[in-house]
Amino acid sequence: MHLTTFSDIEDAYVRIEPYIHMTPVLTSSAINKITGAEIFFKCENFQKVGAFKFRGACNAVFGLSDAEAARGVGTHSSGNHAAALALAAKMRGIHAYIVMPKNSPQIKKNAVGGYGGIITFCEPTLPAREETLEKILLESGAILVHPYNQKEVIAGQGTCALELMEQQYNLDCIITPVGGGGLLSGTSITARYLNPGIEIIGAEPKGADDAYQSFVNKQLIPVGKTNTIADGLLTSLGQLTFELIAENVDAIMTAPDSSIIQAMRLIWERMKIIVEPSSAVALAIILDNKADFKDKKVGVILSGGNVDLEKLPF
Amino acid sequence: MHLTTFSDIEDAYVRIEPYIHMTPVLTSSAINKITGAEIFFKCENFQKVGAFKFRGACNAVFGLSDAEAARGVGTHSSGNHAAALALAAKMRGIHAYIVMPKNSPQIKKNAVGGYGGIITFCEPTLPAREETLEKILLESGAILVHPYNQKEVIAGQGTCALELMEQQYNLDCIITPVGGGGLLSGTSITARYLNPGIEIIGAEPKGADDAYQSFVNKQLIPVGKTNTIADGLLTSLGQLTFELIAENVDAIMTAPDSSIIQAMRLIWERMKIIVEPSSAVALAIILDNKADFKDKKVGVILSGGNVDLEKLPF
Repeated sequence: MHLTTFSDIEDAYVRIEPYIHMTPVLTSSAINKITGAEIFFKCENFQKVGAFKFRGACNAVFGLSDAEAARGVGTHSSGNHAAALALAAKMRGIHAYIVMPKNSPQIKKNAVGGYGGIITFCEPTLPAREETLEKILLESGAILVHPYNQKEVIAGQGTCALELMEQQYNLDCIITPVGGGGLLSGTSITARYLNPGIEIIGAEPKGADDAYQSFVNKQLIPVGKTNTIADGLLTSLGQLTFELIAENVDAIMTAPDSSIIQAMRLIWERMKIIVEPSSAVALAIILDNKADFKDKKVGVILSGGNVDLEKLPF
Repeated sequence: MHLTTFSDIEDAYVRIEPYIHMTPVLTSSAINKITGAEIFFKCENFQKVGAFKFRGACNAVFGLSDAEAARGVGTHSSGNHAAALALAAKMRGIHAYIVMPKNSPQIKKNAVGGYGGIITFCEPTLPAREETLEKILLESGAILVHPYNQKEVIAGQGTCALELMEQQYNLDCIITPVGGGGLLSGTSITARYLNPGIEIIGAEPKGADDAYQSFVNKQLIPVGKTNTIADGLLTSLGQLTFELIAENVDAIMTAPDSSIIQAMRLIWERMKIIVEPSSAVALAIILDNKADFKDKKVGVILSGGNVDLEKLPF
C-alpha cells in the first residue's frame, strides 16, 4: 500500500466536509507578547467529539463502500478515537464495536456509549486490547479503523492543516503534537505540499519521547515506560506514520510536564478555551525555545479539549 | 440627563469598534439537545480583559474630550470593570486611578496593574471604597467612570447585542445576566429597537436577586445580604439601569447556585470554553425552565471568562 498523498487528503476533505466542523483559528495578543512569536491556534478542541480524531475516523467510515460499511467498524481505544469512531459510525448508520480497557475514565465510557458505540471492556493491557478486538472483528465481520497507522485515518487528520493554511496562508512554521503520529504525518503531507519551504515540527512530551528517538535514530523505536500528563500522546509511532514523518518533518522537539502544564494554564487563562494537556505541548515548546520562534508566524494545532475537570493539574 | 437611546449605542459602536474584539457567536448541538432550545452564545469571555465590561469602559474613555481625558479616569472596583477601565485608559494614553478593596484576589490586582492602572487599596467596605475614590478624584481631577450607572457605559454595553443581532438576526429571545444592570439595560435598548417583538430577559442568581425584587415591585430595591457563586452579579441596580430595565425588559428570572454550577460545567465540558459563574446564569435559567424556551432561538450573552482556576466549584 503506497503512502498517503496530498491528493488523498483533498479527497478526504471533500468526503468529510459535510460532517465535520470547520474549526476557528484564534490568536492571543497576550501569548504573542509572552512568546515573541505570532501564533495561530487551530482549535480542534472545538471539533466534534472535542478532538481532531473525528476527521480521520470520519474519513475511514465514509470511505467504505456500502457493503463494507454494512459490516460495521471496530477499534480499541480508551480515548478520543473511540468516541470519534462511534460518532462517525452513528452518522453513517452502522455499528461501531469499541474495545475499551475496563479502567477507562467513566467520562470516556459515557461519551462512547452516548454516541451509540457497542463497548466491550477488557483488561488494561495492549495484548488484552488487541486479542479482544481481534475476536470481535472475527465474530462481527467489522472493519478495523486504526487510531493512526492507517492511510485513510492519516488522510483525514491531514485535512486540519488544509483548513488552517487556507485560514492563515502565510505561516513560517507549523507545530502539532505527536503521539501515534496520525496528526503530525497528515499535517506534514499537507504543509509540505502547500508550502515546500515551511518548517514542520512535532511536539512531544519528554516523558513519552519515542517519536523523537525514532526521528533522530532514523528507525522506529517503540515507546518504553511513559510518564507524562499528556495522556493522549502515550502511544508509539506506527510504520506508516514513521515513514511520513521521517520524510516530511523538520524536527521533533520535546517538553517536560512542568512546561506543558504552564502552557495549558496560559491557554486556559488568556484564551478562555479548554484544551487537554496533549494540546499544550506545542506551546510549551515555543515557551521553552523562544529564540527559535521569534517573529515567526507559527501555526499550532490544538488537538483536543477533553479533560476531567475534577482532576486538573492546577 | 436623558436615558441612553439606540442612537447612543450606534455612536458608541463607531467609537469603540477599532479597540474591541468582534466576539464570535458559538452554538452547541449537545446543549441544544439538552435544553430543547436553539441557543446562540455571544462570547464576551473572548472580549479584551475577558469580559463585556471593556465595551462600556472603552466608550466612556474614548468619549471624553482631549481636555477631559488629560485629567485621567477613576473608579472603584474589585472586578472586571477595574481591568477594563485600566486597559481603555492605557489605549488612550491617560491615567486610570483604580480603588480596589485590599482583599481583592491577587489575579485581579495583577490584571489591573498589568494594564498600568494606578491602584489605591482600601478597606473592603462600600463606604471605604466610595470615600477613597472621592478623595482621589478630588486630588487628581480624574473623571469618574461608573461600572454601570452611567449613560456612556450603558451605551457601550449595548453594542454587544448590536453585534449579536447582526450575527444572528432572527432571535426570539435574548437573555443576559444582571448585576448592576449595565449589560441588561444596554442590551434591552438595542434589542427592543431592532426587534420590538423580541423577548428580553434578565438572568439573576437567587442569592442576589435585587433586580428581580425591584422589577416585580416596580421600585428600586437595593440588594441585601448576598450569597452566590456568581461574584460578578452582587451589586444593586442603579437608578438609570433600573429605569431602562423597567421600560424594556419582559422578565427577570432567577436561578439557584446549584443550577448555575451545573450550567457552567455544561459550557466548559461541551463547548470547551471558559466562562465565569456569572456568565452561566442565563443557561441555568433555560435548564430550569425548559418549557419556556422550547424551540425558541435564544441569544445568550456569556458575559466573561475570568475565573480563578485554583478555586473551581467542581
